[in-house]
Amino acid sequence: MTADPIAPSDTFPVTVRNRVRRLHERGHYDREAVYAVLDAGMLCHVAYVFDGQPYCTPTMHWREDDRLYWHGSSASRMLRQLKPGVPACLTVAHLDGLVLARSGFNHSANYRSAMCFGTAGIVDDPEEKARALHGVVNRFFPGRAAELRATTGQESKATTVIGMRIEEASAKVRAKGVGDDEEDYGHPVWAGVIPVRTVIGADEPCPRLKPGIDRSEGLAAYREGRRLDEALLETQDLYAAAEALAGGR
Amino acid sequence: MTADPIAPSDTFPVTVRNRVRRLHERGHYDREAVYAVLDAGMLCHVAYVFDGQPYCTPTMHWREDDRLYWHGSSASRMLRQLKPGVPACLTVAHLDGLVLARSGFNHSANYRSAMCFGTAGIVDDPEEKARALHGVVNRFFPGRAAELRATTGQESKATTVIGMRIEEASAKVRAKGVGDDEEDYGHPVWAGVIPVRTVIGADEPCPRLKPGIDRSEGLAAYREGRRLDEALLETQDLYAAAEALAGGR
Repeated sequence: MTADPIAPSDTFPVTVRNRVRRLHERGHYDREAVYAVLDAGMLCHVAYVFDGQPYCTPTMHWREDDRLYWHGSSASRMLRQLKPGVPACLTVAHLDGLVLARSGFNHSANYRSAMCFGTAGIVDDPEEKARALHGVVNRFFPGRAAELRATTGQESKATTVIGMRIEEASAKVRAKGVGDDEEDYGHPVWAGVIPVRTVIGADEPCPRLKPGIDRSEGLAAYREGRRLDEALLETQDLYAAAEALAGGR
Repeated sequence: MTADPIAPSDTFPVTVRNRVRRLHERGHYDREAVYAVLDAGMLCHVAYVFDGQPYCTPTMHWREDDRLYWHGSSASRMLRQLKPGVPACLTVAHLDGLVLARSGFNHSANYRSAMCFGTAGIVDDPEEKARALHGVVNRFFPGRAAELRATTGQESKATTVIGMRIEEASAKVRAKGVGDDEEDYGHPVWAGVIPVRTVIGADEPCPRLKPGIDRSEGLAAYREGRRLDEALLETQDLYAAAEALAGGR
């Protein structure tokens, strides 16, 4: 966390909306815990309500301090309804392992998840939108925005960016071995954790790439075999540092 | 798909709720496409609405024909509201690659996603609930339910299973290389796909495992280094075949 005197509280308020009820010992409300889950992911799911019907939309998110951004991936009909701002819940979850216990009841999963609540709205302000379109590239690929063919006005218009300040949030983490009932440990069945992780594969360069063009330094975090969550935490740090140097927000 | 004369239509109806609007060429409505995305995942996100507030809850799902099941991972206050059945949307998404184009606008991701709409309700019927609690184990770990310490009545009571028939659904898939504007291919920046995949790690046996207890055959799909989605598709097939042999549904 920063020592900035105007930094918001290190902990999100706990309300009826974000309080972790089931297995509450797994719940966390501090920004550091919530941001660690958000920043380690590229894929999020956003819940909206339109005409009483809930929609769970997968999309890519990025974060600037306590503000989340994502691309509009729903129908324009829905996006129009977002104009005035609508309640939303953005969730990021990482599956880290399958936990095989000696009873069905104690089977579980290791995971990290964060649920964020707020009011989602379309980013209309031209300055904030330009910053967001720059951010979506540079957050994942530090320094890349300046290397690309510049964004046209028409492209900017055709892109819908949605923003939401995190009003309340909680993180939930399970990261441990099997928890069986004491009397079950003797039961003769294999028990343990089967870990899973999301990793980066070998580059697939565009077949029309001109000879002699290599990956820029900003892509260094994405190495074959590396965990994606680690690469994303690294690029988020690089991005935040570069933004701070540039005068930041 | 089956040749069963009472098999439901191979295609979900397309309505205002599930029609893919943005980049509609990526949309699919056939059961095979939707089930392929659902069955390849263990982690889903469910959107509900309570008191006008949307919630996006990550949980584990499993499928029996056109019926989805998941564990209640929300507050009991919410679960009580599920009793009569509430509209829900269950989504599974797999991130398959980061697509780096020569303009910000053409950056993308490779992914497979499925959104399923229906009415979610608590599974109260004792027979359906017992079958579901057996299913949640055997669907992921074929044959394992019979090897475990039997589930007690109290455990069954303490577990909330939520079920939803898929009324409408759509799948959306992007699985290709960079799509740049024709005039941008000469722009001197690296472009291509950085693939990502979720893989299985090395077993972490429970430290209290008795000597001589090996993994059962039903865990064969989960081998170190293998893709999780492939293992999950394999176990779903094994489960469906075993259920069909046992008289099935």
